[in-house]
Amino acid sequence: MKFNIPAVNLLLTESVQHQIDQKIKPLKSLGKLEELALQVALIQNKKTEKLSLHNPHVLVFAGDHGIAKHNVSIANSDVTAQMVANFLSGGAAINGFCQTNHCAIKVINAGIKNHLPKVMTDNSKLLDYSVAKGTKDFSTDAAMTQEQLDTCMSAGRIIVCNELASDCEVLAFGEMGIGNTSSAAAIFALLNGLDAEETVGRGTGISDEQFAQKLDLVQKAISRVRDSDCDLNEPLNILQQVGGFEIAQMCFAMLAAAEMQKVIIVDGFIVTAAAMLAIKVAPNIKEYMIFAHCSDENAHARMLHLLKVQPILSLGLRLGEGTGAVLALPILQNAISFYNQMATFESAGIVV
Amino acid sequence: MKFNIPAVNLLLTESVQHQIDQKIKPLKSLGKLEELALQVALIQNKKTEKLSLHNPHVLVFAGDHGIAKHNVSIANSDVTAQMVANFLSGGAAINGFCQTNHCAIKVINAGIKNHLPKVMTDNSKLLDYSVAKGTKDFSTDAAMTQEQLDTCMSAGRIIVCNELASDCEVLAFGEMGIGNTSSAAAIFALLNGLDAEETVGRGTGISDEQFAQKLDLVQKAISRVRDSDCDLNEPLNILQQVGGFEIAQMCFAMLAAAEMQKVIIVDGFIVTAAAMLAIKVAPNIKEYMIFAHCSDENAHARMLHLLKVQPILSLGLRLGEGTGAVLALPILQNAISFYNQMATFESAGIVV
Repeated sequence: MKFNIPAVNLLLTESVQHQIDQKIKPLKSLGKLEELALQVALIQNKKTEKLSLHNPHVLVFAGDHGIAKHNVSIANSDVTAQMVANFLSGGAAINGFCQTNHCAIKVINAGIKNHLPKVMTDNSKLLDYSVAKGTKDFSTDAAMTQEQLDTCMSAGRIIVCNELASDCEVLAFGEMGIGNTSSAAAIFALLNGLDAEETVGRGTGISDEQFAQKLDLVQKAISRVRDSDCDLNEPLNILQQVGGFEIAQMCFAMLAAAEMQKVIIVDGFIVTAAAMLAIKVAPNIKEYMIFAHCSDENAHARMLHLLKVQPILSLGLRLGEGTGAVLALPILQNAISFYNQMATFESAGIVV
Repeated sequence: MKFNIPAVNLLLTESVQHQIDQKIKPLKSLGKLEELALQVALIQNKKTEKLSLHNPHVLVFAGDHGIAKHNVSIANSDVTAQMVANFLSGGAAINGFCQTNHCAIKVINAGIKNHLPKVMTDNSKLLDYSVAKGTKDFSTDAAMTQEQLDTCMSAGRIIVCNELASDCEVLAFGEMGIGNTSSAAAIFALLNGLDAEETVGRGTGISDEQFAQKLDLVQKAISRVRDSDCDLNEPLNILQQVGGFEIAQMCFAMLAAAEMQKVIIVDGFIVTAAAMLAIKVAPNIKEYMIFAHCSDENAHARMLHLLKVQPILSLGLRLGEGTGAVLALPILQNAISFYNQMATFESAGIVV
């Protein structure tokens, strides 16, 4: 399956920028908000029409990781399912943020280890696209089979194309999965020729001993894949070797969203790893992505730097769940509001 | 008139922090949002009750400056009244942000040079507390008389105590006034023993020539005041000498708001100058202040650094109007939402 992502229409840049510059304010004085308005105008291919961020959704992909058996996280894999229950019952941070910011939420079971009871699978917020009950331990084996990767690809596309209301114009991405900072660190390293010590962080707050163990396992995985006959120029090989089901489904869902010219909001370290993979698969996707925040996870700033992107927020977050992405949503909505609503010097009769 | 601002109840810190730490998330993982929730709990003196940011208002104070006759801004003083008209008709950036973020707006005529037509003064968004038609040129004379300063003090208090709905729990501050970055730079310098070159910036985007002129005039004002018999340990003397009517009314309105234990959101460079003055008048006020953003104006970062505060946003804004303050409001509301709504580990049955 190929992804066919149209390049955004850069030919509109000048006319959109002209509209921004006619607004009754000093040139460039709305800083980042001006960049965001321009980016959305290009994504939505609108030369003069109003921009819209109708019906925003956050997709929280959840999956478990074989690597978690080595105790590299502050919690064990049972917590993935417990947090999914919490997302569904509305008690998590992401739920409060969604309510405050008028953002719908869908939680995707991409491959949780534990059985989800019927009361959860009956919840309309849950989409069940489980590939398997967690990945294999990627320090010793490929995280998933080629077939499982293909299943993630179909799932990502179906979730975006079929499960969402067709009038949803902005998709924020979030995740939950005990062990998934290890997977993201390994992906980041393999995509960029880095070593574990440059990409591994403390996740949600592990001890020195756990950190040493995490470093060791991620480096083992990196070496295993580098020493194999795996073609590292093919990003999907890296995803198969050290990824997670939630990371894979996110990556493919992003690609499908860009095909449909949706605005994509990227959350923290793990979502950015998925975004990096998607960019390697189809570089055009980058122009559809808005990077919500720089998280407190050690290597996230480096990731953003390598991507040459400036995130909207920097609030010391390290929670995941899509929290940073949904927190950035109001800023994006304000960017649209100035573009759509502000008077121009001409309309206000002001001569400077 | 003295200001009687109660110290926030630091004895609540431990119990509030305990509540934050019981939320179902890794410790400290909501970063800045946790600090904001704690600060609001202390301001509202609530140990366990829900926090509230009911009925937010932004107060945009407008005034003109005698210094503006020297062409130190991108526009002349006529634009102050024109922008006030724009605020009242809903075409400014702040209007769109207020609408998007559900924030009410009041525009205060603190001392605009031009006559405001009746159609404007009849607008319920406008509060008319004009002291005079602009300040004197502070490079050569005191900006205002003692009597005018006293009038600003009464006005600031009346605006907050009488004009606002009594159930308004959060006040954002913004400003408009051609020439007021010069005034703010002079205040900043005199309050902190700095010179003009350390505090003067390009405002909304002046030329090299204008910048040199602005530097020169602000330094002249600083020297004039330092060489006078004015007691610089008394911050209100500095305000009288180099301030503006909008800056003075803001400063006193903030002090009145803190007396009433309201949450105060501080916008950019000029509002922060007013906040610095208020802090010198009554240091307790600082705990009531939330610093919205670091603006693109040259010396704002230095101001925030000297105040030892970390702003919420850094978006390269340099517009004023309270735009940064209203943009930070949703982040504050999200901080409240996690504090009020999130499940605890105990309530969700999760053991880590």
